Amino acid sequence: MENDKQPPATPSDGQMNDLLPIDGIDLRTGRTSGRNRDHLLVMKLAEATQVAAVFTQSSFRAPPVIIAERNIKQVPTQALLVNAGNANAATGDEGYENAEALCGRVARALNINPAAVLPFSTGVIGEQLPVAAMSEALEAMCQSAEPASFSDAACAIMTTDTVPKGTSARFSCGGETYSVTGIAKGVGMICPNMATMLAYIATDATVAKADLDIMLREIVEQTFNRISVDGDTSTNDACLLLASGQKPSIKPENACWQPLYDAVYKVAQHLAHSIVKDGEGATKFVTINIEGGHTRRECLDVGYSIANSPLVKTALYASDPNWGRLLMAIGNAGLKALNTNQVSIYLDDVLVFEKGQAATSYTETDGARIMQQDAFSITVLLGRGSHTERIWTCDLSHEYIRINTEYRS
Amino acid sequence: MENDKQPPATPSDGQMNDLLPIDGIDLRTGRTSGRNRDHLLVMKLAEATQVAAVFTQSSFRAPPVIIAERNIKQVPTQALLVNAGNANAATGDEGYENAEALCGRVARALNINPAAVLPFSTGVIGEQLPVAAMSEALEAMCQSAEPASFSDAACAIMTTDTVPKGTSARFSCGGETYSVTGIAKGVGMICPNMATMLAYIATDATVAKADLDIMLREIVEQTFNRISVDGDTSTNDACLLLASGQKPSIKPENACWQPLYDAVYKVAQHLAHSIVKDGEGATKFVTINIEGGHTRRECLDVGYSIANSPLVKTALYASDPNWGRLLMAIGNAGLKALNTNQVSIYLDDVLVFEKGQAATSYTETDGARIMQQDAFSITVLLGRGSHTERIWTCDLSHEYIRINTEYRS
Repeated sequence: MENDKQPPATPSDGQMNDLLPIDGIDLRTGRTSGRNRDHLLVMKLAEATQVAAVFTQSSFRAPPVIIAERNIKQVPTQALLVNAGNANAATGDEGYENAEALCGRVARALNINPAAVLPFSTGVIGEQLPVAAMSEALEAMCQSAEPASFSDAACAIMTTDTVPKGTSARFSCGGETYSVTGIAKGVGMICPNMATMLAYIATDATVAKADLDIMLREIVEQTFNRISVDGDTSTNDACLLLASGQKPSIKPENACWQPLYDAVYKVAQHLAHSIVKDGEGATKFVTINIEGGHTRRECLDVGYSIANSPLVKTALYASDPNWGRLLMAIGNAGLKALNTNQVSIYLDDVLVFEKGQAATSYTETDGARIMQQDAFSITVLLGRGSHTERIWTCDLSHEYIRINTEYRS
Repeated sequence: MENDKQPPATPSDGQMNDLLPIDGIDLRTGRTSGRNRDHLLVMKLAEATQVAAVFTQSSFRAPPVIIAERNIKQVPTQALLVNAGNANAATGDEGYENAEALCGRVARALNINPAAVLPFSTGVIGEQLPVAAMSEALEAMCQSAEPASFSDAACAIMTTDTVPKGTSARFSCGGETYSVTGIAKGVGMICPNMATMLAYIATDATVAKADLDIMLREIVEQTFNRISVDGDTSTNDACLLLASGQKPSIKPENACWQPLYDAVYKVAQHLAHSIVKDGEGATKFVTINIEGGHTRRECLDVGYSIANSPLVKTALYASDPNWGRLLMAIGNAGLKALNTNQVSIYLDDVLVFEKGQAATSYTETDGARIMQQDAFSITVLLGRGSHTERIWTCDLSHEYIRINTEYRS
C-alpha cells in the first residue's frame, strides 16, 4: 500500500484557456433573451463522429435523458444540445414534447434528422422549459458563424458550479498527434452512477463505436463513478465520449490504443476530481483507499460508508482527526464477520489505528497536521483479502447548508 | 391512506417529573470526582427481574456491548451499569479489561456475580475509561442509601442531548395497575438498527424472558429502528426491556398482554420520537409514509433514501417545498421498473406530484405553508403494491454542522 497512500497527482486547475480544440467538433453557445450569461450549448459533430454515452441510473429519469438514450440507438448522432438552469425533469408529457421540439429546431437549422440530436438539461427540477425563447436562441446559434471554444462551452453548462471544469491531453503515436478535451459540470447530488453531472469528452481520433462504448464504460467506472459529494444522484446525469474521426483510426489491437486510453482516463479523472473539489461548500479533497477486502464490492461499501457519513464529513471540515467516526462508518458498511483487530487506518502515511485501538505511535498532533491540509488520504486496510478500491470525496461545511437552503430562494 | 397522512400523536414532552417509579428497579446515579454533573448510573434489579436486550449491528462493537451480550446469556442479570461521556469503544484489550473490572466492582459492592452485571458506555470513541475514579464513584453509589429517580437517571445518561428523554405509561388489567417507564439518550449517529442510543424501558409486571424478547424485538423494529437523524449508526447502541416481576404475571395468551404491549410500544415510540426531535441541530420533525410498495423492504428503501438525503434535509430546514429533491431521492432508492407516472407525493394532505409532474391543483404557497410547520408528513404513494412503512426524521441545519465540528474541541 505504500504507493497508494497519497492523493493521486492531478493536473493543475486554471488551465481553462488552454483547452485544445477538437477538429470535427463545432461548438456554439448562446442564451435566451434577458439572461445575462450563455446557458445554451450546441455541439455539431462531423459526420465521421462516433458517440458513446452513459446515463443516470435513477428510477426518475428526465425526458431529455430518455430521449437521448433512444435517439442514440436510432441514427448516428450529429449534434448535442445542452441547456443549463432547467433540468426538464418531472415535467410530464409536456416535458417530452418540449425536448423533442427543441431537437427538431436544432435539426432544421443544421439540416439533419431530429433523431440525430441528443438533448441534455441540467438545473432545477419540475419546471417547463421556455421553449419559444430557447428556439429563437438556438436558431441564432446554429446560424451564427462564430464558433465557441471548449472554455466557452464549459462556462455555458454551469449551474451552481463556482468554476468551469475542463482539461485537455495530447499524445503522439504512429507519426500523428491526437488531442483529447473534456468539459464537465456538477457540484451537488454527486454520487456513484452519475450525478447532476454532465461531462463531454472528445477526441479527434477515429474510433469504432463498439470500442468507444467499452472505453467509456471502463473509464467512467473508475473516475466519475468513484466520487461522492453528498451521496445523492440526479435525474439527469450523462457522460459522453466523442471520437470525431479527423485523425487516423485507433483500435484496441493498435499500439496507439493505450496512449488514447490513458489520455481519456486522465481527462476523465481530472474532471471527476474537479467536481469533488467544487463540491457544494467543499473545503477539502479527500482520497479514500480501501485495501485488503474480500471483494471489490466490500471495499466500495466501506469507502462510501466513510465518504457519505455526515459525521465523518463534518470531522473533515473541522480538520479534527476524530478517527472514532471512521470506525463508526467502517462498522456500518455491513461487512460480515469483520475482525476489527485486523483493521488498520492511516491518515496519509500516519498510522492511526491498529489491533483494535489507537496505534501506540499515534499522536493527535500528527493526525491534526494531516487533516489541516487541503488534500489528504484516508487509507483503511481491512486485512481480509486482496481487493482494493479508491474513491474521492469532500467535506460537509456550513456553506453546503447555505447553498442548499438558498438555492431556490 | 387518509388515516396515515398526519404525524402520529405523541405524548407531550416536559413530563420528566412525572416518570413513574418501577417497583423492583433501584436506581443510583453519581459522578467521578471533579465532574460537575452525574454521568454514572447503576440500576439494581430485583431478583425476579427478566431482561431482554438488543444491541448495535455495527461490525465495530465496543467492548461493553460485547461483554453485555455475553453476560446476559450466562446468568440472570441483576444490575446495569451505564456511563456517559466515554464510549469505551476502539479501546482494545485494555477496554475489555476496564469494562470487566468495573462490572466486578459493582458486583462486589452489590454482592452478586460479575456476569450478572451488564455494562453500557456512550460518548467519545477511542479513549480509555478512568477506571480508578469510576470504581471509587461506583462503590459510593452502590453503598449510598439515596435512590435516584428515573428522571435523575435520564439526566445521568445524557451526552450531547439537549434534553433528558423519558416517559411513562400506566394501565390497569385484571384488578391490578401496572407501570411502564422508559428513558433514553441519543441525538446523533441515529439510524436504523440502533445508534449512539441507549434506551431502558422497565415494567413492574412479571413477564417470561422469551416473551419479553419477542416483545422488545417487535417494538424496537417499529420504533427505534424507524428513525434517522443522520444515517449513521454507532458502536454502542442498546435497548433493554426489563420486567421486574413485582406485579402478577402477563403472558401473550392473557387479556393483559395487549395493554402491556401497547404501553411499552407507546413508551418506545415516544422515546424514539424524542431522539429525532432532539436530533443534532434539528428544527423539524418529519414523518415519512411510504405506501403502495411491492414489499416492505422497498418502502423502507424509499423512506430512508428520502430521510438520509442531505439535499432533502436541507430543503426541510429551509422550509422549501422543493419536491424535485424528493423525486431525486425516490429515484435513487434502487427500485426496479418503477413507473414514475404512478407515483404520487403529498405534503400533509396537499397533493404535490402525480402523473409524472406537479399536480395541477398544487401551488407553491400550499407547499410552503405545510413545510413551515415544526412537524409535518411526506407521503409517497408508489402505486405498485400493498405494502406500507413509516419512518421519522429531522432536517439538516447549520447547527448540526456546528455541533459536529466542535464536539471534541
